[in-house]
Amino acid sequence: MGSQEPRTLVNPQNQLFYGTFIYPKTLTELEYLYNTAVAVDQNGTIVAIERDCDLPKATNTLLPRLGWSPDSVTINTSSASHNQFFFPGFIDTHLHAPQYPNVGIFGKSTLLDWLETYTFPLEASLSDPAKAQTVYNRVIRKTLSHGTTCAAYYATKDVTTTNLLADLCLRAGQRALVGRVCMDQLSPDYYRDASAADSVAATRESIAYVQSIDPTGAIVRPVITPRFAPSCSAPLMADLGKLAAETGLPVQTHISENEGEIDLVRELFPAKEIGAKGDTYTHVYDTFGLLTDKTILAHGVHLSEEEVEIIKARGSKVSHCPCSNSAITSGAARVRWLLERGIEVGLGTDMSGGYSPSVLEAARQAALVSRHVAMTCSPKKGSKANKNGIDRERAKLTVEEVLYLATKGGAKLVGMKGKVGGFEVGMEWDAQLIGLGRDVADGEYEIEGKGEEKEEEEGNVDVFGWESWPDRVAKWLYNGDDRNTRKVWVKGRLVHQRK
Amino acid sequence: MGSQEPRTLVNPQNQLFYGTFIYPKTLTELEYLYNTAVAVDQNGTIVAIERDCDLPKATNTLLPRLGWSPDSVTINTSSASHNQFFFPGFIDTHLHAPQYPNVGIFGKSTLLDWLETYTFPLEASLSDPAKAQTVYNRVIRKTLSHGTTCAAYYATKDVTTTNLLADLCLRAGQRALVGRVCMDQLSPDYYRDASAADSVAATRESIAYVQSIDPTGAIVRPVITPRFAPSCSAPLMADLGKLAAETGLPVQTHISENEGEIDLVRELFPAKEIGAKGDTYTHVYDTFGLLTDKTILAHGVHLSEEEVEIIKARGSKVSHCPCSNSAITSGAARVRWLLERGIEVGLGTDMSGGYSPSVLEAARQAALVSRHVAMTCSPKKGSKANKNGIDRERAKLTVEEVLYLATKGGAKLVGMKGKVGGFEVGMEWDAQLIGLGRDVADGEYEIEGKGEEKEEEEGNVDVFGWESWPDRVAKWLYNGDDRNTRKVWVKGRLVHQRK
Repeated sequence: MGSQEPRTLVNPQNQLFYGTFIYPKTLTELEYLYNTAVAVDQNGTIVAIERDCDLPKATNTLLPRLGWSPDSVTINTSSASHNQFFFPGFIDTHLHAPQYPNVGIFGKSTLLDWLETYTFPLEASLSDPAKAQTVYNRVIRKTLSHGTTCAAYYATKDVTTTNLLADLCLRAGQRALVGRVCMDQLSPDYYRDASAADSVAATRESIAYVQSIDPTGAIVRPVITPRFAPSCSAPLMADLGKLAAETGLPVQTHISENEGEIDLVRELFPAKEIGAKGDTYTHVYDTFGLLTDKTILAHGVHLSEEEVEIIKARGSKVSHCPCSNSAITSGAARVRWLLERGIEVGLGTDMSGGYSPSVLEAARQAALVSRHVAMTCSPKKGSKANKNGIDRERAKLTVEEVLYLATKGGAKLVGMKGKVGGFEVGMEWDAQLIGLGRDVADGEYEIEGKGEEKEEEEGNVDVFGWESWPDRVAKWLYNGDDRNTRKVWVKGRLVHQRK
Repeated sequence: MGSQEPRTLVNPQNQLFYGTFIYPKTLTELEYLYNTAVAVDQNGTIVAIERDCDLPKATNTLLPRLGWSPDSVTINTSSASHNQFFFPGFIDTHLHAPQYPNVGIFGKSTLLDWLETYTFPLEASLSDPAKAQTVYNRVIRKTLSHGTTCAAYYATKDVTTTNLLADLCLRAGQRALVGRVCMDQLSPDYYRDASAADSVAATRESIAYVQSIDPTGAIVRPVITPRFAPSCSAPLMADLGKLAAETGLPVQTHISENEGEIDLVRELFPAKEIGAKGDTYTHVYDTFGLLTDKTILAHGVHLSEEEVEIIKARGSKVSHCPCSNSAITSGAARVRWLLERGIEVGLGTDMSGGYSPSVLEAARQAALVSRHVAMTCSPKKGSKANKNGIDRERAKLTVEEVLYLATKGGAKLVGMKGKVGGFEVGMEWDAQLIGLGRDVADGEYEIEGKGEEKEEEEGNVDVFGWESWPDRVAKWLYNGDDRNTRKVWVKGRLVHQRK
């Protein structure tokens, strides 16, 4: 247990993927490629794409061009009869690995009491390496099974088990940002860094370890992780800001999740005392150099126009966590408003504020929450603008948009823009094979069990056969689950498959 | 196909169920019975409950008392090692069987354009009996697999296939209210009753058929179903009100789902013209005698205090459909407000306005939507009432409350109060065996697949073993799906089991 030998993440063979490919081309448009071949080399990079061909033609055309001998190539196909397609792997831009055992358990709490009641005790207990190994293995396997090929993890304040999380991600082949959590104030005695200096030293120790096990950072990378402003002293945040500047490493933290938290930040960090140019939550992080173009800000539910301007200017990004925001009553983030102001947005499960390990569920809830935003952002009842629904229409996120946020959008948050999130030459093969199962056919489903049954493992999506491909994708978004994620690859390597 | 012989729904044997039983005792409290035996007779009625006993003691005590010989009893046990428990079957108080193929497909539509674009064409096409058989068999099997033991179905305006739906429910053993849809105006030419008289005659025909195949109404019963006010003329609604009074049959319709719809109702039915005592949506139904103590009103999102008083006075009930209300941007129903005014509330999937066949998903979304209600019903930011969160706390629905609405609450809507929804002597055995799978154990989940795996079919809920039973139930609510519904019984008869 614990430290692992670094692995050589090279695949044994070149690969050819053939069939239907769907991926976000832009925020608003999915690309559908049918009868297409995608060639992936031993490094997991897409080196060629051949459209509108059958498999023999693809092999006859592509293999000689690539100089690949047929027996050196593994061929993977999606099955049309099982409504299968390849889709980019999901990117979970915000989650807490140690909180996984608490998913679904939050009662009627809101952020600050939720932390005290549910979260800090569990996180503290994960300094036990055996318990951490069980929980971390499970959360990695679980998120992989839901198609998460890259995750931005918070670990705990404990260095040993934070490093273990990085080991386990590397071993499983799941791309991860792994952050040792910094927190030197306003947390319980049993779970708090002794000082800012201690916190920074522990962070440096963990960074060095993570970089040692994956020197190129292809799979696991460290991330500077001030928990959130209330649990970090001004000196700690200042030091972490300097560390970010010194190392060029990414930063992740929370911002503007809950109104009580926002009030608390204003009380704890008066602008005059910390030398900020304004009295917002965003000014606090900005003052300490924590807003970089590699910063992931989770939530951003209650940000003001002024704050968003600063975030945009710094190039920092926002991780939208709809499951969490609804569950612990934080608010409904205005994603359209963020996007229109040029902020890059990804999705986060935020376990266990969020109840689900699934980015697909986060995407589904992002669509639903955007409708709640629509229903409350509209002008008062009876006004003309309300009746013609202009505001509502704009706030709502489409199927295409939430799937973009779940993949290509998220890639920008984790520093992988242009590398993952789509199927284009030069990108890496982080992908899932999605299967919606066989069509529901006439007479096939005899109630009394005499007829042939759709296999239960095929999942909860029912395709009747007449649906367009966009409608099939919508059905997957709204009723899909891990049963539909048949196989998952990271950097060309198969990291999960259903039995 | 089509008409079926009536079935004798008597079980071959008496049954004893043993293990853990959980059910809603009141709106706010779940009852947990451990090491308990429940005896169910051949009619599917619970005839005895023995608490705190082992299985030998239960059989030794109960069987002689009941006069049952041991070899005449089937014994079903829940397995503690698989975190199994018996739970009442779910009651889906509002769904449209013919719309099932459209689940998840709604784009950015709202009610009125959604009807035109997606719903009417599909419903009209279901007058084809072969297509109807495929779709209706599938929706019955699907909802059973999610633990729905009773459903209040809208069919279509077509009598033959409405009757087929009743046949298929009876054959599958799923309790159902089956309603032939009445609609004689404001619908497309291709899908509209020719006149009020035609609509009523067709309704009578379907009622007679459904009563003929299940004369006691134990499994299937007819329900008078004016689609919603906009698609029914005043004469049609008046006639249907008279039919309800004449037959004593239940009524189901929609009310106050969407603001555009409410405006339309006000335009179509001016109070003066129809002789109503007020100009609300509720007054329209009330004027035509459609509000009885057996009326299920779907949605009720935008009801006023005045309307709720009328509904309360008539004893009509409300089916809350959170998935639908969020998906097609109808609004966030104020369930706490309805409950506090004495309205009986159940849950509906409202497929395919709602995207999911699962009442568990409806319960989950009811909890989440109640938090959106909380977030918008609070006083303005900065006021004291907001800071101490009193309003928010009251609006939020707990795990216990949404599971009550899904079972015992729903029973009141479908006329089965005191008969189903709990495990008490005299109630009928409409139940599900829920299994959350084996505990996640140390070292069990080796990433590289060497160790023993948790079976994938066990589902998406992970129990680590240290959770309390209420926390396990919360985990089921938030991450459970049809994989956790191992077996389903209606009136003592096994109607679904997972392989």
